[in-house]
Amino acid sequence: MSEKRTEIREIGEFGLIDHLNEKVVVKNPSSIKGIGDDAAVIDAGDHVKVITTDLLLEGVHFDLAYAPLPHVGFKAVAVNVSDVAAMNAIPKQITVSIALSNRFSVEAVDALYAGIHAACEHYGVDLIGGDTTASRSGLVISITAVGEAQKDQIAYRNGAKANDILCATGDLGGALVGLQILEREKQVYLANPDMKPDLEKYGIVTARQLKPDARMDIIHELRELDVVPTSMMDISDGLASEIFHICKASNVGATIYEDKLPIDKQTFDTAVELNLDPITCVLNGGEDYELLFTIDQKDFKKLEKHPDIHFIGHITKAEEGKFLVTKSGTAVQLKAQGWKHF
Amino acid sequence: MSEKRTEIREIGEFGLIDHLNEKVVVKNPSSIKGIGDDAAVIDAGDHVKVITTDLLLEGVHFDLAYAPLPHVGFKAVAVNVSDVAAMNAIPKQITVSIALSNRFSVEAVDALYAGIHAACEHYGVDLIGGDTTASRSGLVISITAVGEAQKDQIAYRNGAKANDILCATGDLGGALVGLQILEREKQVYLANPDMKPDLEKYGIVTARQLKPDARMDIIHELRELDVVPTSMMDISDGLASEIFHICKASNVGATIYEDKLPIDKQTFDTAVELNLDPITCVLNGGEDYELLFTIDQKDFKKLEKHPDIHFIGHITKAEEGKFLVTKSGTAVQLKAQGWKHF
Repeated sequence: MSEKRTEIREIGEFGLIDHLNEKVVVKNPSSIKGIGDDAAVIDAGDHVKVITTDLLLEGVHFDLAYAPLPHVGFKAVAVNVSDVAAMNAIPKQITVSIALSNRFSVEAVDALYAGIHAACEHYGVDLIGGDTTASRSGLVISITAVGEAQKDQIAYRNGAKANDILCATGDLGGALVGLQILEREKQVYLANPDMKPDLEKYGIVTARQLKPDARMDIIHELRELDVVPTSMMDISDGLASEIFHICKASNVGATIYEDKLPIDKQTFDTAVELNLDPITCVLNGGEDYELLFTIDQKDFKKLEKHPDIHFIGHITKAEEGKFLVTKSGTAVQLKAQGWKHF
Repeated sequence: MSEKRTEIREIGEFGLIDHLNEKVVVKNPSSIKGIGDDAAVIDAGDHVKVITTDLLLEGVHFDLAYAPLPHVGFKAVAVNVSDVAAMNAIPKQITVSIALSNRFSVEAVDALYAGIHAACEHYGVDLIGGDTTASRSGLVISITAVGEAQKDQIAYRNGAKANDILCATGDLGGALVGLQILEREKQVYLANPDMKPDLEKYGIVTARQLKPDARMDIIHELRELDVVPTSMMDISDGLASEIFHICKASNVGATIYEDKLPIDKQTFDTAVELNLDPITCVLNGGEDYELLFTIDQKDFKKLEKHPDIHFIGHITKAEEGKFLVTKSGTAVQLKAQGWKHF
């Protein structure tokens, strides 16, 4: 008699997460929001704290063949800060745990921490704790970030309602295109180590991949303009996937417009050079760490002229479904392919 | 010209931690206590939160050859709860991140989470978030725990003063002895897979290693008795090493007495069987997850009759040094060997 064995790839990363979350029961009154958003929310007397955590492994999340250690450190902090931003909160503290194999010298660890400290400085967060241990295979980084907000400032995924305007910051698809370039140049280098990779013309897209910047600037501006998004999340798994998350959590539909989707010129040109469809890169490329949020129509005037907030569509009733209206005016059903680790 | 390369083993785990911590500057007013204690402390309006995190890797911190997955899950939570206890705080929330190689099935992940959920239930904590990702080499678990306390209840490492009484809970050395037995039986099994390991007579020590219990019972009792330790930490790296930490942080010395050190009979007998000195196991064995704390003499009467709190010595002035008084009455200098991962 053999025990049943279900491979994780059969149910996928999101399937596994859903499966694990089914069994979770939250009991403490201070646990305001548990699993299911960009960060958890806990009570802190006169305010709330948000808590988020990310686990990053060498060879899965970063490749030291092309990612310099200071960039890896900076990005590890930035992706957590991005989750705090996605709750409309201000990051205040992080803990950093690292596991190191003996391949890493003290100088290498210093290079990693140079990036971590630079990110702490950039985002105004304090490094308050962590754990340092040995690893048998490469570098592992686990960061937990804590942020603060007033309770009524928190933006969850579940607050979008029909007729809200769907907004995206910055430009999208760059991090995916940058990754393709870095992988291509790595193969060229491995085939011929005398060949020096020519990355100069790909500066924007490779920077999008190697050193993303969490959009805390947008969070501070929303506060100054007195706008609380009705829903928000960060774009880490791809725009389409994130729209699906908001629609599911808020029980709504959405329509977005191809001609409103923000794409940088270098991202577009490089995608074409790589034989990738630029719009597919925008919809399904991950790791841009921009913000996707919805606002009530009454707030539109306040944001209308913002150079880096794009009004990509609007929220509809759930039964209207999720559509992309192409440049030619055809409505095609949106698909969420996301970013697969398993 | 070659760059300087310093191996981590040259400076050791504590050396690396000290080196990394030198550069840390804490700026936000809500960061009450950063690196350097069992957990960080942050302001939460009418109370404080404590935050601690641990990163556990297969092959470094646990061996699935003898550690059942539910035990690994339980222990991963317990070691974080123990750090919260060590601050004299009550744990409320945890986040759990895991990285899995394709060796792990959905059923294996369920077994791991069965232990995590059992620990959440046991300690009254809510699982509020985390991250799930792929790994190229085995299981990685990163847990962050959040606890609560009133500001004046927090017990730091730096509050011990001369003439305070040094207390240790439970018994010590068992987890190390249990680990030696498990490693021995693993080798026997590897040499001859038909040989069934005989672990029955080692039930106590193997349980100390595989399923430690954080001493939240003691924390609740201290509250009921209205005792706030002048300093406290958990015993994860070995009693001697922890005494050194308290002495360094509090700028004091300590004298402990061999005949007061708590050791379980099975731990003693098994140590002898393994040709290990039982007192060395008590002083330098790690992973017992008992509590080491100091109390003002005025509180002694309240704890005097507690069956599981042992008064192992007292705090002295820093210049008096750190000594162990043997059963024969000789004072020998205490050495902190600790528990090495690098």
